[in-house]
Amino acid sequence: MKINLDKYKNLTRNFEREIINLNPIQRGGILPVEAKKAVYEFWDGYSVCDYCGGRLDQVSTPPICEFLEDFSKFVNLDISRPTHGAREGKFIVMHSICNEGDYVVVDGNAHYTTYVSAERSRLNVVDVESDGYPTFRINPEKYKEVIDNLEDKGKNIGLILLTHVDGNFGNVEDAKKVGKIAKEKGYPFLLNCAYSVGRMPVDGKKLNADFIVASGHKSMSASGPCGLLAFKEEFAEKILKTSEKFPIKEIEMLGCTSRGLPIVTLMASFPHVVERVKRWDEEVKKTRYVVDELEKIGFKQLGVKPKEHDLIKFETPVLDEIAKKDKRRGFFFYEELKKRGIGGIRRGVTKEIKMSVYGLTWEQVEYVVNAIKGVVETHK
Amino acid sequence: MKINLDKYKNLTRNFEREIINLNPIQRGGILPVEAKKAVYEFWDGYSVCDYCGGRLDQVSTPPICEFLEDFSKFVNLDISRPTHGAREGKFIVMHSICNEGDYVVVDGNAHYTTYVSAERSRLNVVDVESDGYPTFRINPEKYKEVIDNLEDKGKNIGLILLTHVDGNFGNVEDAKKVGKIAKEKGYPFLLNCAYSVGRMPVDGKKLNADFIVASGHKSMSASGPCGLLAFKEEFAEKILKTSEKFPIKEIEMLGCTSRGLPIVTLMASFPHVVERVKRWDEEVKKTRYVVDELEKIGFKQLGVKPKEHDLIKFETPVLDEIAKKDKRRGFFFYEELKKRGIGGIRRGVTKEIKMSVYGLTWEQVEYVVNAIKGVVETHK
Repeated sequence: MKINLDKYKNLTRNFEREIINLNPIQRGGILPVEAKKAVYEFWDGYSVCDYCGGRLDQVSTPPICEFLEDFSKFVNLDISRPTHGAREGKFIVMHSICNEGDYVVVDGNAHYTTYVSAERSRLNVVDVESDGYPTFRINPEKYKEVIDNLEDKGKNIGLILLTHVDGNFGNVEDAKKVGKIAKEKGYPFLLNCAYSVGRMPVDGKKLNADFIVASGHKSMSASGPCGLLAFKEEFAEKILKTSEKFPIKEIEMLGCTSRGLPIVTLMASFPHVVERVKRWDEEVKKTRYVVDELEKIGFKQLGVKPKEHDLIKFETPVLDEIAKKDKRRGFFFYEELKKRGIGGIRRGVTKEIKMSVYGLTWEQVEYVVNAIKGVVETHK
Repeated sequence: MKINLDKYKNLTRNFEREIINLNPIQRGGILPVEAKKAVYEFWDGYSVCDYCGGRLDQVSTPPICEFLEDFSKFVNLDISRPTHGAREGKFIVMHSICNEGDYVVVDGNAHYTTYVSAERSRLNVVDVESDGYPTFRINPEKYKEVIDNLEDKGKNIGLILLTHVDGNFGNVEDAKKVGKIAKEKGYPFLLNCAYSVGRMPVDGKKLNADFIVASGHKSMSASGPCGLLAFKEEFAEKILKTSEKFPIKEIEMLGCTSRGLPIVTLMASFPHVVERVKRWDEEVKKTRYVVDELEKIGFKQLGVKPKEHDLIKFETPVLDEIAKKDKRRGFFFYEELKKRGIGGIRRGVTKEIKMSVYGLTWEQVEYVVNAIKGVVETHK
C-alpha cells in the first residue's frame, strides 16, 4: 500500500472568510459565531453521546430532546426527528408510509433527490408540470388533475409532495392549496422545505402539511450534513416503528441519525435562525433590489415576479455575448468576480446564472450589484 | 410560538478537554490537531460543495475523490464511497444486493444496527450464536451449519455478515475463515469494521471480504456522523446503480451522502490514522496491562483472552459489593472517577463495565489504572 498523504495535511478553503459567496445552496448554511463556539466543544466523533441512554432524540445533554420539541413548535407540527438532511427525511417518509409500487405525485420543479428517494423506495413518480417559461409556476389545480387521472387508472397513490421553494427558480409555491387538495383526496402531504425552513417563516399546520423536511446545511446555519423531519402525530406509528429485537431503536432512523457535530451546530444556531426568519421581508427586499438593478444591464429574472425568495435565476444573454469575444470564453465572468472577492457563481456558465444575497448586509448587496455591473459594463 | 432559546446559547462539553474518556465508542473518534484546523475552514453548511460537478465522490477540491481511492488501498478493496456511518453502509449493501425476504446470516455479537438495517431492508436475520460465557467467541464453523440449515429449508440467503470486532466484548473474530465459508457457498460477505478500520490494520481481500463498512466517528478520528463503504468491483453495478431520470446520481447514496464537515475531518485525520494503525501492537499491550492490573483487584475480563483489541468488558463483582453499602449506591464509582478526572464509564452500572484506553499515553494508562485501584481499595 503506497499512499501519498501530503494532500490531506493542509485542507483549506477561502470561501466565506475571504470571498462573498453567492451560491444559493450556501448562503443559508453559514454558521453564526455561537455555532462556531459549540464546534470547538463537540468536534470529536461521538461527542453528543456522552450522556446517551440509547437514543439520539432522547439525549438531554446537550439538549437534543428539547430542541426537537422546540423545532416542532417552530414549524407548527407535532413530532420531530433529526435526519442527515432533507433528502434523507423524504426517503424516511416515502419508505415508511408508502408501499412498493405506489405513486408519488410531485411538482415539476422538484429537487432531484425527490426522484432519487422515490426510486430508492421503489415507488413511481408522476410530475405536475409547471406552467413553463418564464415563470415556471406550479398551479395547485393541476395536482387535482394528475390525482384524478391516476385514480381513474386505478393507481395507488402513496404520497403528495410539493417543493415549497424550488432550487431552480426560487418560486414560493402555494403549499396551502396543494395541501388542501391532498387532504380532500385523503392522501398524505409532504412539503420539502429545504429552501424555506430557517430562511422564512413556515407554519406546517397552516400550510396543511403532514410532513415537513428541513435542511440544516442549506437553510439553518448548520454544518452539513443534517436536517429535520417534522410530522403530524397520526403518522408516528409508521415513521417511528421500532425494532422487534431492540424495542428502543427506531427502524427508519437506523437507531440514531445525526450522531455528532452537525446537530450541535443546528442547535447552537437555532436562536440565530429563529431571529432571522423574522427579518424575512428585509431579505426579499434585498433580492428585489438585486433583480431591479441587474435587469437594467440586460439580465432577465426567471420564475415568479416579483421575487418572494432570495434564490434568483437570471437569463444572462449579455454575458453570453461577452463570452463570444473574450479570450477566457465563459470563464471571464467567474474570474472577474473572483478578482472582486465574489464567488459562488458557476464557472464557465454564461447563459443563465443562479445567485442569492441572503444574509448579506445592504452594503455588501450594493457591492455585489456594482461589481457585477462593473464587470458587464467594462467588457461588453 | 413560545420557545426558550437560552438553553442553546452556551453549549459546552468538558470531555476530552478536561476529562479522560474511557468510553470505547469515543476513544477512536478523538480529532488530531490537523483535523481541528480543517474544521475551522469547512464548518459552514455545504462547504465541501464549492467546486462540485454533481457528485460528492467526484469532488476534487477538497480531494474527496482521491481520498476514496486511497481508502480503497488502505483496506485493500476496489471501490469506496462515503456514508453517514457504518450502519448506513450496512443498509446500503443490504438494500441494494438483497431481495425483500432474503435471509442474512449474522454473528450473535452483531451490533443492534445490523438487525435494524436488515429490518429496514425487510430481510430476515439468522444468528450464528457465540460460544457464550465467558469468551463469547464466534466459531466460523457454525456459520457453515447455519447456512446449510437455511439451504436445507430452501431459504434464500442474501448476505453473510460478520462483526469484525464486536462492541460488547471486543473480540477480534476470524473474518478470513467466515469469508472463506461464504465464498465457498457462493454468498457475498460483509465485514462490519466499525471497531477495527482506523484502529488496527485491516486487509479486505486477505480477509475474504466483499464489503467493508467503516465508521469515521467511532474509529477514524472524524467528527460524527460519517463513515465509508468499500467493496469489490463485481458489486459496483448494484451498489452504484444510478437514477433513471438523473443518470449522474447514485440511488443508494440519494445522490450524495456526507456532504459537509465530517468528511473533511475524516480526510484531515487520515494521515494520523494511517500512522496509528501501525502502532496497533502497542495499543494491545496497553490493553493487556490494564486487564492484568485490574484483575488483581477483583475485576474479571470477559471475551477472548488474552485481549486482541482495546475494548475491554469486565465483570466487576467488587464494585457491586461496594455499591450495596455506599450511600451513593451504584453511582459511587462514576462519581469517584469523575473526581479524579476520568469519565466514560456508564453511570450507576457496577456489575459489568466497558472501557478502553486506546490512544492514551502510557502515563495516562497508569494514571487510570491507579485511579480505579484507588477507588476500589479505599471503598471496599
